[in-house]
Amino acid sequence: MQSPTLTIASRSHEYPVYIDQDIRFHTFNLINAQLSHPASAYMIVADKNVADYYLTEVLSSFPESKKPFVSLIPSGESSKTFDMYHQLLTEALENGLDRQSVIIALGGGVTGDLAGFTAATYMRGIQYVQMPTTLLAHDSSVGGKTGINHAHGKNLIGAFHPPAAVIYDSEMLRTLPIQEWRSGFAEVIKHGFIAEPELLDWLERNITDLSHIPSEKINELLERSIRIKAHIVEEDEKEQGVRAYLNFGHTLGHSIEAEVGYGHMTHGEAVAIGMSFALKLSERLLGSKLSYNRILDYMKTLGYSLQIPSGCAHDQLIVRMRRDKKSSHNDINYVLLHSIGQPQLVKVSEEDILRLLEEEGNLR
Amino acid sequence: MQSPTLTIASRSHEYPVYIDQDIRFHTFNLINAQLSHPASAYMIVADKNVADYYLTEVLSSFPESKKPFVSLIPSGESSKTFDMYHQLLTEALENGLDRQSVIIALGGGVTGDLAGFTAATYMRGIQYVQMPTTLLAHDSSVGGKTGINHAHGKNLIGAFHPPAAVIYDSEMLRTLPIQEWRSGFAEVIKHGFIAEPELLDWLERNITDLSHIPSEKINELLERSIRIKAHIVEEDEKEQGVRAYLNFGHTLGHSIEAEVGYGHMTHGEAVAIGMSFALKLSERLLGSKLSYNRILDYMKTLGYSLQIPSGCAHDQLIVRMRRDKKSSHNDINYVLLHSIGQPQLVKVSEEDILRLLEEEGNLR
Repeated sequence: MQSPTLTIASRSHEYPVYIDQDIRFHTFNLINAQLSHPASAYMIVADKNVADYYLTEVLSSFPESKKPFVSLIPSGESSKTFDMYHQLLTEALENGLDRQSVIIALGGGVTGDLAGFTAATYMRGIQYVQMPTTLLAHDSSVGGKTGINHAHGKNLIGAFHPPAAVIYDSEMLRTLPIQEWRSGFAEVIKHGFIAEPELLDWLERNITDLSHIPSEKINELLERSIRIKAHIVEEDEKEQGVRAYLNFGHTLGHSIEAEVGYGHMTHGEAVAIGMSFALKLSERLLGSKLSYNRILDYMKTLGYSLQIPSGCAHDQLIVRMRRDKKSSHNDINYVLLHSIGQPQLVKVSEEDILRLLEEEGNLR
Repeated sequence: MQSPTLTIASRSHEYPVYIDQDIRFHTFNLINAQLSHPASAYMIVADKNVADYYLTEVLSSFPESKKPFVSLIPSGESSKTFDMYHQLLTEALENGLDRQSVIIALGGGVTGDLAGFTAATYMRGIQYVQMPTTLLAHDSSVGGKTGINHAHGKNLIGAFHPPAAVIYDSEMLRTLPIQEWRSGFAEVIKHGFIAEPELLDWLERNITDLSHIPSEKINELLERSIRIKAHIVEEDEKEQGVRAYLNFGHTLGHSIEAEVGYGHMTHGEAVAIGMSFALKLSERLLGSKLSYNRILDYMKTLGYSLQIPSGCAHDQLIVRMRRDKKSSHNDINYVLLHSIGQPQLVKVSEEDILRLLEEEGNLR
């Protein structure tokens, strides 16, 4: 039997994270190693595109008598809606899922968030298992945040509901397009910035081309990055303190993503711009000496554009930052760095942000 | 400052229950005694009928700068829908509620369940306060169960999310119709049956007419009944064990309620029939000697009809029991009594239930 690569402690329970190639063929056994009672039924919520590649293989791990029901959802952020959430609840009811049943999320972050929120609120909460199929989802699959979007903004509706297990078959990442590698890799870099400068060195030495990463490097990358995330969420599951540091690069990143239009730029590519901006803001407001040029150059060689897109009006970016659920009434809560690996939450005035946005814009 | 009548320990935090006359006039202070940070904003979700009587008085306790937003919902079970849930989330967003805001549920169980589920999932969970205005809600206001209905059944969607405080102004019960007293009083009797025979004796001695209960008796009634409920949910918040005993009388009760049609019989009146049936089933299947005639006679003098309504087809009742989310695949999980105060969860075959239903039906 496979042993967990990591074990994560949530407030309610511990759960294993399995990271390895081809473990999708052992899904049934890995899940059941984890359950105190056998599940009464299984429902797989799968991203349609992912299902084309991997669903049959995942299903093959289940015995005939325990075959999961399957709900397919369209790829992309537009699936994180109220309507889709309601539809999944209805399908779960119509397929007879009860409190001893398990939902399996097979896909990227959207699938995990949506299926996780469905599990969190189905009969007041049933167990679910994350099977991330993107690099970006290494970030969202641990920590227990689940949720859907509202017309007024992303992730505004949700719950903290940690999974029963995370099964990360790194082989499933092989079919990812390069933009998706870049999207997820930005979160790996972020973990280096906020917690572990050595990770940044390791990345520079070991990963020079996102389209050709050897399998064992992918596994190590996932393990190192998830370990950092896990430490932070173990310390602060419900985002009252240090968990906010995970928002590094996201204040501006989210705003750019929304302003450019979801789907026109990946999450991580927007976060990369946000991190570059936050580094500069840190030097200016905290007097930090971050020597970030080398790492920004490294990011550019990987294909990141670190410029704020010319279509983004600066005042609109500010409006969006203000609306972010992490901001409190007037100032904007910004994660800045004292030094690489030493983040701090700082209330920053809109004027200071706007001034740097203007200067960066003029550099173009 | 008012001290709490009771303090209840949930898995995540302790919360006070205030029970007294006219404490609605101190709502603001009672809530703020409880918060670690001042709330950024307040939103009252109020039952329309209740609002007519008490909203102005509750609002008068808030300083001008902290006046709550108010969302009114129609009275009755039909408000516990997806649409109403979505509407409350939208109103919360449009009124600028953030993670430091507080939702106040002013109404009966429907209001508490709906507002509580909104709070449980708004920005992954914000605080809420229960202000029950019915006797029945003494039961649902503690324990942290929140939820809404689905076309396939009641309370199928929800979350465990204990309140920050319960503020129970017994004066607000004065305007309750007699059927509502009877509905809530059935849950008080239930607490006696499953945990405290002395409570039944106390009730028989002290409360002989539900339309005339002296104020101090109402306070004592609420405190005794909530204390029993609190002990049970403290031991088993997430319904893995003893919390199931609270389902005494509810297996058949829920089925009758659904079969007769919600609104045509109160919850508690249906549960009373269910309890009478469960007492008889206990004697038959466990060989218990429960001497229940005196207490059933007492219930009849209070106006309960303990007959299964003639319009309820017995096989339909069975179908509904089977669908109950507390039943596992084939048998029906039934709470029976060894003796008064000694419940046990028993898997009962559908045949045994049907046989007693037929016999009871023939007695009519």
